[in-house]
Amino acid sequence: MTVSRTVELEGHIIDSGSMARCFGAVMDLGGEFDVEAFEVGRHKHEESYCRMTVSADTDGELRAIVHELNQNGATVADPRDATLEEAPADQVVPVDFYSTTNHPTEVRVDGEWLPVENVEMDCALVVEKGNDGSAPRVVTRVLNAIEAGDRVVTGETGIRVDPPERPRGKGSAFGFMQGGVSSERPSKSLIEEIAAEMRDVRDEDGSVLVVCGPAIVHSGGREALADLVRAGYIDALSAGNGFAVHDLERDLYGTSLGVDTETLEHPRKGHKHHIYTISEIGRAGGIEAAVEDEIVTSGVMYECIRNDVPYVLAGSIRDDGPLPDTITDAVEAQAAIREQAHEADLVLMLSTLLHSVAVGNCLPSTTKTVCVDINPATVTQLLDRGSAQAIGMVTDIGTFLPMLADELLEEV
Amino acid sequence: MTVSRTVELEGHIIDSGSMARCFGAVMDLGGEFDVEAFEVGRHKHEESYCRMTVSADTDGELRAIVHELNQNGATVADPRDATLEEAPADQVVPVDFYSTTNHPTEVRVDGEWLPVENVEMDCALVVEKGNDGSAPRVVTRVLNAIEAGDRVVTGETGIRVDPPERPRGKGSAFGFMQGGVSSERPSKSLIEEIAAEMRDVRDEDGSVLVVCGPAIVHSGGREALADLVRAGYIDALSAGNGFAVHDLERDLYGTSLGVDTETLEHPRKGHKHHIYTISEIGRAGGIEAAVEDEIVTSGVMYECIRNDVPYVLAGSIRDDGPLPDTITDAVEAQAAIREQAHEADLVLMLSTLLHSVAVGNCLPSTTKTVCVDINPATVTQLLDRGSAQAIGMVTDIGTFLPMLADELLEEV
Amino acid sequence: MTVSRTVELEGHIIDSGSMARCFGAVMDLGGEFDVEAFEVGRHKHEESYCRMTVSADTDGELRAIVHELNQNGATVADPRDATLEEAPADQVVPVDFYSTTNHPTEVRVDGEWLPVENVEMDCALVVEKGNDGSAPRVVTRVLNAIEAGDRVVTGETGIRVDPPERPRGKGSAFGFMQGGVSSERPSKSLIEEIAAEMRDVRDEDGSVLVVCGPAIVHSGGREALADLVRAGYIDALSAGNGFAVHDLERDLYGTSLGVDTETLEHPRKGHKHHIYTISEIGRAGGIEAAVEDEIVTSGVMYECIRNDVPYVLAGSIRDDGPLPDTITDAVEAQAAIREQAHEADLVLMLSTLLHSVAVGNCLPSTTKTVCVDINPATVTQLLDRGSAQAIGMVTDIGTFLPMLADELLEEV
Amino acid sequence: MTVSRTVELEGHIIDSGSMARCFGAVMDLGGEFDVEAFEVGRHKHEESYCRMTVSADTDGELRAIVHELNQNGATVADPRDATLEEAPADQVVPVDFYSTTNHPTEVRVDGEWLPVENVEMDCALVVEKGNDGSAPRVVTRVLNAIEAGDRVVTGETGIRVDPPERPRGKGSAFGFMQGGVSSERPSKSLIEEIAAEMRDVRDEDGSVLVVCGPAIVHSGGREALADLVRAGYIDALSAGNGFAVHDLERDLYGTSLGVDTETLEHPRKGHKHHIYTISEIGRAGGIEAAVEDEIVTSGVMYECIRNDVPYVLAGSIRDDGPLPDTITDAVEAQAAIREQAHEADLVLMLSTLLHSVAVGNCLPSTTKTVCVDINPATVTQLLDRGSAQAIGMVTDIGTFLPMLADELLEEV
Repeated sequence: MTVSRTVELEGHIIDSGSMARCFGAVMDLGGEFDVEAFEVGRHKHEESYCRMTVSADTDGELRAIVHELNQNGATVADPRDATLEEAPADQVVPVDFYSTTNHPTEVRVDGEWLPVENVEMDCALVVEKGNDGSAPRVVTRVLNAIEAGDRVVTGETGIRVDPPERPRGKGSAFGFMQGGVSSERPSKSLIEEIAAEMRDVRDEDGSVLVVCGPAIVHSGGREALADLVRAGYIDALSAGNGFAVHDLERDLYGTSLGVDTETLEHPRKGHKHHIYTISEIGRAGGIEAAVEDEIVTSGVMYECIRNDVPYVLAGSIRDDGPLPDTITDAVEAQAAIREQAHEADLVLMLSTLLHSVAVGNCLPSTTKTVCVDINPATVTQLLDRGSAQAIGMVTDIGTFLPMLADELLEEV
Repeated sequence: MTVSRTVELEGHIIDSGSMARCFGAVMDLGGEFDVEAFEVGRHKHEESYCRMTVSADTDGELRAIVHELNQNGATVADPRDATLEEAPADQVVPVDFYSTTNHPTEVRVDGEWLPVENVEMDCALVVEKGNDGSAPRVVTRVLNAIEAGDRVVTGETGIRVDPPERPRGKGSAFGFMQGGVSSERPSKSLIEEIAAEMRDVRDEDGSVLVVCGPAIVHSGGREALADLVRAGYIDALSAGNGFAVHDLERDLYGTSLGVDTETLEHPRKGHKHHIYTISEIGRAGGIEAAVEDEIVTSGVMYECIRNDVPYVLAGSIRDDGPLPDTITDAVEAQAAIREQAHEADLVLMLSTLLHSVAVGNCLPSTTKTVCVDINPATVTQLLDRGSAQAIGMVTDIGTFLPMLADELLEEV
Repeated sequence: MTVSRTVELEGHIIDSGSMARCFGAVMDLGGEFDVEAFEVGRHKHEESYCRMTVSADTDGELRAIVHELNQNGATVADPRDATLEEAPADQVVPVDFYSTTNHPTEVRVDGEWLPVENVEMDCALVVEKGNDGSAPRVVTRVLNAIEAGDRVVTGETGIRVDPPERPRGKGSAFGFMQGGVSSERPSKSLIEEIAAEMRDVRDEDGSVLVVCGPAIVHSGGREALADLVRAGYIDALSAGNGFAVHDLERDLYGTSLGVDTETLEHPRKGHKHHIYTISEIGRAGGIEAAVEDEIVTSGVMYECIRNDVPYVLAGSIRDDGPLPDTITDAVEAQAAIREQAHEADLVLMLSTLLHSVAVGNCLPSTTKTVCVDINPATVTQLLDRGSAQAIGMVTDIGTFLPMLADELLEEV
Repeated sequence: MTVSRTVELEGHIIDSGSMARCFGAVMDLGGEFDVEAFEVGRHKHEESYCRMTVSADTDGELRAIVHELNQNGATVADPRDATLEEAPADQVVPVDFYSTTNHPTEVRVDGEWLPVENVEMDCALVVEKGNDGSAPRVVTRVLNAIEAGDRVVTGETGIRVDPPERPRGKGSAFGFMQGGVSSERPSKSLIEEIAAEMRDVRDEDGSVLVVCGPAIVHSGGREALADLVRAGYIDALSAGNGFAVHDLERDLYGTSLGVDTETLEHPRKGHKHHIYTISEIGRAGGIEAAVEDEIVTSGVMYECIRNDVPYVLAGSIRDDGPLPDTITDAVEAQAAIREQAHEADLVLMLSTLLHSVAVGNCLPSTTKTVCVDINPATVTQLLDRGSAQAIGMVTDIGTFLPMLADELLEEV
């Protein structure tokens, strides 16, 4: 038996790689394709179009192929409305529910293509009825937020995914769908490009989210980051308990015990000051209270409080303490991170794999990202998550942040 | 002004490095020492003894020096009882509270040296009054478990730390206090030594705790680990939500959709099956229910259920789902991990940094640990935490586990 | 001013990515394209065809674009003979000489397309006159082998490059042009596939070249590799002085001084035995003499001698000694490696970056390669060199080789 | 049977770790020790003394133990002259020849302790007769430089090794015998310390040797390094062919083809310009000629020529070309590197493992070294080689060099 289905692709599908990925997926999954129409864009601003019938030996194989094609931008020709099924219980989705990509997506409901709100990867799509005659909406819903009775999209019918297209013309520092990491680019020039992007986002009243790991403090990037917060280049901060404690510890114990952290002296192994810090902030009642009481008088968290930059501190099982400000429940913390991610226009992921993955999971492929880490494997893993416009930089956060701050603040 | 204090060291303090570390700490911290008595152990089974007076310019400097010496095994001569202060509020410790090492420790209360229970690093010590005439106890308490009124040990007086000593005679595969990682040792021989240790622990009714990362499943070590659980070599399991989902996904989707995971076919990028798995386990009501209903019929989690091997699944902000079994609150999860850590005689840390650090934080330096990871930086970081008897192995978990299982199960 | 040129592409140019790379190159380099004809392959066995005119503002820009297109398989339409210029001096090529890819290439001479012999990357092409009426030949020549008067190909005219095409149908373990490294594949299955490939090569009287780093000896893979040499699975060996010395040292000092290397005992830091070994082999007159005199009686080099497996030992500036067998001149050693590379059908690159890069530089893109290293950056760098059929495996050579030998030798 | 020997140690043998290493070595190697006299240094400026008899079951075991003790600073009590044997042939040493450490060493000849000249690791010691009544000398000789008849030191008698001692007082950024890498130190402060050291060396007319990898050019550190050469901070340069070609390529093709390397544009894969550069320098007759003819007008090699900074370019099997200046013979290149190493007071090892190991092999443990690499494994491996005063820094050479140059040149 042979089963088949016809799909269409449209856009810059050759140079963006969609066409190659679709042909490849059919072959990988053991199917056949028959191209019925193909019109190539003659020059770089003209789009191409392809209609082809894909076939496979079984329904299951065909469904797997169509799923792949759909995720790469092909839509089933002769569209019908998306199939909806009710969720049988809280946190349980119908079998064969549609699992999202992080690309802009539309769903056909009552004959109309509706844009999906807040799309992110590996979620379900729920169609919310319009009340009182208002139009229905399609929302992205993470598994643990599904409620019994939610109308969940299943199958691949009536779903249109719009993968990112290669920009026309020359590339920028933000590579297009580059899995790899360019270590052959001059670090200083890349930092200048990142600074230019941050200036652009600020000029357009966009939002920069910075995701911070504790290495920022150890390696000496803390003061530069605090300067950037004070100068208004950072609109939100996402970090773990550890980053905040290290930042506050530098303020509380950096010089008060006669040890000058700048001179590298006394790098003893003990973590005594780390838990002293947690205890002191706890005694004050939290970071904001500690700033108000002038217990804490400098650093990244201090500048966030002073400049009304909202932050999310997410807990983890390896934390000491934690601080009163830390959200210890992972689901609750993820929800807070999700909100940050949805509002960001540019995300700087600085020396933290765990928190960067958490933020990256919630981002649409259209948000620009900059990943900086000394470990190339971390940068590769973050770029692989799939922003279409990403800069990966394997460098030392302790030299990166001072150079970035120099670049952005020298004009002032 | 010069202030000074006299301390004593006793034991194999030269070859174990305590003496060198103590002299070094005094010099690093700007102090002076004056050795008043020194008796060297003439041969390897004879202990050495040193009494010296250390001095510094200020009380603060002297206190910092004595703290370091204490953590390296020196005790203040002419001992008095430990100083106790009440915790002023929940989760707040007295200023200058004593921050623990992970070495066996004794505290002097009412003229008697009491052993500290469940010692672990970076905690406070609380003296619990003996009720109704029973003897007082000294317990280790993590910061967030401190309650107002707890009698907390402060300063360095009346505290005796017993750092690990170099074993007499030839070393074993378990290195003594080796920060580094030996990549110059034959992998096969090291695996044989680890197997021998696991056999020894089992023969002595000891407890083996395995800490698992998802790479075990990706790289093909799952079946070997499941075999080890079934054969009784694993007494407890600690992992994250991701490990359990990957393990269960292999069972649910590994072959059911016509894709044979062994043949490497169809390695598509999508994570659809991952969230399908979470949804299916949720539908069943959890892992145990899914095993009982024969929805899940193989794998590591399956064998844990079937063989009554207790597990802790700790949540994190990058999780999908999570599974109903996952503890999402970090403090609650840490408490569960702490209990596992205290019961373990041997801990295998397999391809997970986050969970291994969480477990390692709760271990005394006397518990044997084996750290296996493909990333040398992970192994180094875990060994640095300070078990006195650790094997670090930079290898591929997908070849390590089958070879370990071969070694342990062939005899059967 | 606008200058332009017409090029053609033919083959599986969409799914193999050539078309996307060509469009991308034009845009990256600031040019324009105008597609004059495009015929798509309707199904997976039908080839596609494209003819387009590319244009740019200057001759220099156009030349850069046409160079890129040529290297990705486009040929200048309406072909003329390749341009030839004489090399002005030894080791000096004409300005604008054609620099090779590692793909199969043809050059048009006297109206005929001649295949390039022994193509490898970053070399010049020299047309050798047919003597006495015999046909002319096009040979690949590395820069330092160019002699004054050699007729060197310049420009892009009359050159046809044939980049590898995506295999029709499902992929094998040998990925097609995959820059990345799959760490999500089961190690054991990958090893089975590599073994199957080695068996196939042997069955077809092909040639397996193994490139060896010293980690093979340290990590305990030496005996397994020696077994594979003895069993006839290895046809040539390429290594450095260090590998050979470590291998011989195990034979000479592994047990002779009462130290059993298998028990891991006495891992002292000294390198005394290393230079003792070099001195002893020197005293014997070389490795072959040492084997014949029964000074050396086991190991990889021993089996190479006993089984007539030719080897190249290349020197480097960090060597001790070196051994009499080691070729200390880099140009001479490279020439010997080049010959090995040209004869190989399958190359195993085992835990050595330097020697693997040296071998990889000399390989055409059609030779299958397997890269095994514990360091993912090494594997990535080797795969990036561009074999069309490569397996990259991030694993421990000390577990890989015993498992590979088990797989290949168990049948015997 | 028990055999024994008496040895002595003197100096800061406790806090420098020699005593612990000696006790450990005896136990590791299965021997016994009996301390006959031990006088501890009462305060930090007073030295300690130990005399002990070590015993073992066999002569072979005792010899192994005494070798280890000797290398850690113990000398055989009741000294006799060193044993000398003639080398039986060129490049062949007597069995049981003494293999050197990289620590200052003295050899007893005719009743007098003579300092060893140019000591480096893993070499032989040759006593050269004083001619015409002049005093005999003890020279370090690498294996391949041994000539038949050389009087080579064998055994451990009459040899005194002086391992580095822990500096009295607080440590500097140059750690004492630290195998590990501090990633917890602020990068900017460390760079300031390195700059201060370079200034000190210059002020004392010392010599700074820089060892350079090609990443300096890729990552944008080239101009800063050229500035440092011009400003007189670099006294010698050691690199490979690749570094020089990349540096020259930037000059020749960085802007001449209309591509501005600073804008990151056109990062095509081809290596065409790389071999064009080699051909052009070859045409000119070498780097110096190319500078004189004003073909090359900027960069690191240019500044070396213009400022009479001598350089060694060592060839390797992965080189293209090579340049006429490159020494292709490994033994000859090693000899040239050896000379550089012996003259250096401070060595900066920048982003190259191969060349840094080659230089490091020739250094005494008293030369200060700074190792900078983005890969922590490289830094660890270089620090393990054993300079007593080393800074290891895991950072990006493309940000390190501009910040170092800023620090050193701003004052001017």
